[in-house]
Order: sequence, then C-alpha cells, then structure tokens
Amino acid sequence: MKLYDSTMPAPHPRRVRMFLAEKGLDVPREVVSMADRAHKLPAITSKNALGQLPILELDDGDVICESIAICRYLEALHPAPALFGATARETAEIDMWTRRLEFQIQAPLSQVWLHAHPMTERHMREQGMARIPQAADEGRSRYLSKMAWIDQEMGAREFIAGGQVSMADIVGLSIVDFGRFVGLDIPPGLQNLSAWHERMSSRPSAMA
Amino acid sequence: MKLYDSTMPAPHPRRVRMFLAEKGLDVPREVVSMADRAHKLPAITSKNALGQLPILELDDGDVICESIAICRYLEALHPAPALFGATARETAEIDMWTRRLEFQIQAPLSQVWLHAHPMTERHMREQGMARIPQAADEGRSRYLSKMAWIDQEMGAREFIAGGQVSMADIVGLSIVDFGRFVGLDIPPGLQNLSAWHERMSSRPSAMA
Repeated sequence: MKLYDSTMPAPHPRRVRMFLAEKGLDVPREVVSMADRAHKLPAITSKNALGQLPILELDDGDVICESIAICRYLEALHPAPALFGATARETAEIDMWTRRLEFQIQAPLSQVWLHAHPMTERHMREQGMARIPQAADEGRSRYLSKMAWIDQEMGAREFIAGGQVSMADIVGLSIVDFGRFVGLDIPPGLQNLSAWHERMSSRPSAMA
Repeated sequence: MKLYDSTMPAPHPRRVRMFLAEKGLDVPREVVSMADRAHKLPAITSKNALGQLPILELDDGDVICESIAICRYLEALHPAPALFGATARETAEIDMWTRRLEFQIQAPLSQVWLHAHPMTERHMREQGMARIPQAADEGRSRYLSKMAWIDQEMGAREFIAGGQVSMADIVGLSIVDFGRFVGLDIPPGLQNLSAWHERMSSRPSAMA
C-alpha cells in the first residue's frame, strides 16, 4: 500500500501520520505538495475526484479516501494498540467524540479558513465559491464558544474519550493546532482543554 | 436501553430508525417533539448538552449520541446483516462514502436549512447566530453540484458503497429526502442518483 500524504498545516493528512506514529506503523508515503496545488492535478484527481488528501492506495490499485476511514482500515489490519476502542462501548464513545469534534469544532473553523484566510483565496475562486466575510465571523464565534463547551465536557479527564489516548484525541489535536495556524488559539481560561493540549503535544506522535 | 427519537423531517433520528428496520431490531423509543422544542429542555440537555437527537440511553444511564455512533454500537451487538461492512475493505468503503455524503452533500444542505428555512429562524436566534442569505445561496449551489458528482461516482452501482445496502445508503437517503423537504429535489438528468433513490425508497425501511 501507499499513502498520498501532505505537509503541515493540512489537518487531515496529519491525522493519519499521528495515527501511524501512535501505532508504531510505517506505510510508504508520497508527499504531494498542496502549496503547488499538486493535489488538483490528474495524478491525484484520478484517484480522488475531490482532489483531497490523504489517499491510501492499496496493492490492487483501489483507494480509500477520508482520514478516519483510512485509519479505521489500518486499525482492522493492526488492532493493537486500539485507537478506535477495544469494546463496543469504547468504540461508541470514541466515535461520538470524534464526530462531535468534527461537526461542532472543525466545521466552524473551516468557515474561517475558507472565507477569511489568504491561503484559500485561489481555492475558493477555482471552486466558483464566493468569500463571505460574515460566514467567517460566525465561524470564529461558534468555534470559540464550542471550545468552551468541550472544555466543560472534558472536565478533568486525561483524554477526550475515556481513559486512554484514542482517535478522538488525534482528531482533536489536528483541529486545535490547525485553529492556531488559522489564528485562533485556545481561549484563556479553558484550563481542561489547555492541559489536554499540552499533554497531547508532548507525545512523540504530535511531531508527525 | 432506550432511544430518544424524533419525527420527520429530522434526518439524524431517521437514520437510526431506518437502521433498526434494516436490521429487524426493536429498541424502546421515546419520541421527543422537536416542533415543541422539547429537545432543548433539561430532560434532554442533561443527557446531551447540545440538545440534539437521537440519543441512545444505556441501562446504566450512560448515553451515546451521534446517529452513526449509535448505529455502529448496535451493529457491534447485532452483527447481521452487516450494514457497516463484513470485512475491513467493505467497512472502509462504507465509511468513506458515509463521510463523503456528510461532508460534501449534507454540509452545504445544512447551510440552506440554517440560513434560509423558516423552521430554523428561532433556533438561529436562540443560538445567537445571524442568518446569512449568501451562505444559503452558496450552500444551494454546492449541494446541487455535489449531487452531480455523486451521480457520476455511483455510475450503475446498485448501492452507494459496494454490492449491498449499507449505512452509506441510509445516510444518503436521509440527506436526499431532507433536501426535498427543504425544497431541493434531485436535479433532472441525474439518472444514477434518481434510480438509486427510487430503489431505496421502495425498501420497507424507507418508511421509518
């Protein structure tokens, strides 16, 4: 198999790299330069018409897209350590938190990224999408308020979903660090989230 | 266990009902009236602070939120027929398509729903979120163009992910029917998608 990967700051490719690091797995990688828009060229769009990374190409040429689907597939091949949960209950908890992070936290952040960041100006133009400053403002305010909600939900828990590191933490770190890249840091006063961020950032996988 | 459910047109509760129908499972249900805003009252927000349905309450009082997490949990308890795939490859394919449907098709539809539909006016006001007509327009155009993309990707396949009905079809039907409710039908000329919609709508589970 072969992983079509990219570099920082893209949060989705990073999830797979962090997942591989936590699992101690190695997969042959080809780095595709998003800065050069190489993910929008036929070599990639023939594999994923959406021109999105990461892509996992299997030995028979079939591809799996979507970072979570790729990681779940790799976990099925290499179950330990379990990052999607070892029991139905753990899996449900991790799945729930992963989805909450994506829909409550990442979705408004994407609005800021797409509607206000200089690096997406060309992408939006090519997609025929208008930049809507008000949508960026709304995303910014929703992102910050949902960070406060997560902080409260987490309480003193060491990890986002249950007692051990999981895919939810990987997704969370990829989002929060992307938020910092976009200019939205963890608001002061969110001590649970800040402590979690520090713990996650000190893991070797955070360098991936 | 007990399922906190709602009625049409809400797409997320419907997914769990369709899933249960396809599996031939029965779970005790309590219908919460979203029309009466009962999902924003403490009886529900004490279980899910987001005030979202569905919620699966387990016998020990723990809850699982997020429709897909609930269904995946129920599948772990009742594996056959497999709606999340019987092999790692099938699961990856179903997972990929489920996520594509949610991020490419449902996300822009939500923009139309939240920024333009009369039924969300109060919700948006309560959330302190401004209605942005341009965001609704952008969502409408992206929804329709991504429907054309799905139509092309599907080709003559009978189901969205692989050779048998799966969670991806359930998610797809919940989105497309919600789109129709919001006023966005399948555009004429998308024959693959229209034929799939007809096939899925003729299944008994579509009545759920």
